Amino acid sequence: MTRFDPYRVGRKFRLADIDPADTPCLKGSGEAQREQLDQLAKELDGLQNLLHAEGKRKVLLVLQGMDTSGKDGTVRWVFSRTSPLGVRVAAFKAPSAEELAHDFLWRCHAVVPRTGELAVWNRSHYEDVLVPVVEGWIDKAEARRRYAQINDFERLLAETGTVVVKCMLHISLGEQRERLQARIDEPDKQWKFSRDDLVVRKKWGLYQRAYEKALAETSTAHAPWFVIPADSKLHRNLMIARLLVKTLRDMKPRAPAPDPTLKGLIVE
Amino acid sequence: MTRFDPYRVGRKFRLADIDPADTPCLKGSGEAQREQLDQLAKELDGLQNLLHAEGKRKVLLVLQGMDTSGKDGTVRWVFSRTSPLGVRVAAFKAPSAEELAHDFLWRCHAVVPRTGELAVWNRSHYEDVLVPVVEGWIDKAEARRRYAQINDFERLLAETGTVVVKCMLHISLGEQRERLQARIDEPDKQWKFSRDDLVVRKKWGLYQRAYEKALAETSTAHAPWFVIPADSKLHRNLMIARLLVKTLRDMKPRAPAPDPTLKGLIVE
Repeated sequence: MTRFDPYRVGRKFRLADIDPADTPCLKGSGEAQREQLDQLAKELDGLQNLLHAEGKRKVLLVLQGMDTSGKDGTVRWVFSRTSPLGVRVAAFKAPSAEELAHDFLWRCHAVVPRTGELAVWNRSHYEDVLVPVVEGWIDKAEARRRYAQINDFERLLAETGTVVVKCMLHISLGEQRERLQARIDEPDKQWKFSRDDLVVRKKWGLYQRAYEKALAETSTAHAPWFVIPADSKLHRNLMIARLLVKTLRDMKPRAPAPDPTLKGLIVE
Repeated sequence: MTRFDPYRVGRKFRLADIDPADTPCLKGSGEAQREQLDQLAKELDGLQNLLHAEGKRKVLLVLQGMDTSGKDGTVRWVFSRTSPLGVRVAAFKAPSAEELAHDFLWRCHAVVPRTGELAVWNRSHYEDVLVPVVEGWIDKAEARRRYAQINDFERLLAETGTVVVKCMLHISLGEQRERLQARIDEPDKQWKFSRDDLVVRKKWGLYQRAYEKALAETSTAHAPWFVIPADSKLHRNLMIARLLVKTLRDMKPRAPAPDPTLKGLIVE
């Protein structure tokens, strides 16, 4: 039993059971928490570096969440100490005509991490079992097919050396209101605002249901989902940083053993 | 006249005129220098963020240099404070069969920065006017054609909104010996060592000449080359960080103006 278990999605999962205002990973003063985050970010850098030196395995972090749930902020703060050499971010937007002309996993497969890399997906293939479900573009049978296709795809990744961790950034309707209002009111943030966000916000309940279903159907032993209480930004960052550090520690990455035939070699 | 001008490559450029042990950007104690680098890295993050908010222009930093010249280290330290959201690193290795089946600029064009991004190329299309020249795989006429093709390609990038900065990390033969020896002798570094590096090292003079020629032929107003004295790692990092910060400051990136029609909008 780890502290993450209550937030790991099982088959009988109800999203409403998890309070977005929870803070299981917050301890100590604000100052102490920021210091913890910085230490975790540094440890993550060291572990990623070993993963690169080892050159055999990969890590994929999938970030999903409603607008303003903090996907960009997570990338900024959890990876604040990591060299961009080993962390590759892919942001998935509404699919282009070219992408729509392919199966929905095509654009994702193209950017899976290579050996030694940690990839972060800001949105992902899960958009294709959220938006079409909410909008009614696909029926239940097609949604079921897609969940299965996703599970197969992620099993392929796991079986070929990728550790997959998926986080849903869980915020409340009220918290989203405040964050959207801030984007409207604060000139520095206005470039992040889109009127479409207000349209999507009106479908909040439908999205929560689509998330609940998708997470329950695709949280597997080889690619589990975690729901991250994310009304507190600092808590969200700390919980994801801890989860990633734990994941990498458990992988025990190590540099290759020294080559005995190099012993005594002198560079001229 | 800026402090970078003496290191900017012009037509009558001789690589031997630049001392790899120079430290024009080092001032103060080691502690003060590390503090400067950290401040520059933070400023770079802020500027990159504005570039992203603006969403119109791009930056491409090309890093070239002999083995152990510090390309990876530059990425690690200059971008130590930058969110991986806006910085994308591409490392070019010996071309694959698929890459060789295309023109030499194909794989590079595929990873140019998108709007708001800062791309860093760890090696680049310049490998194709260095290795083949040294190995005698192409004649002078073909090399000239490639310099011209490179200049045309980089003009396209510049004319379509990309600011291109190219840095050659200039180390001495003696400094390389020490760094290679350290990779052999220190178990933690051995995974970075390749026996091929010793083969390439034997062709040092040929590579210096190939660099000199390539830099002189492709240092243009729209995509200048800078030679970075790089025997000191801290100096190398500081000089490149300063150059990039100056480049971004000169671009004056700014977030879009507030949208007056959003004034007073209340989120429900």
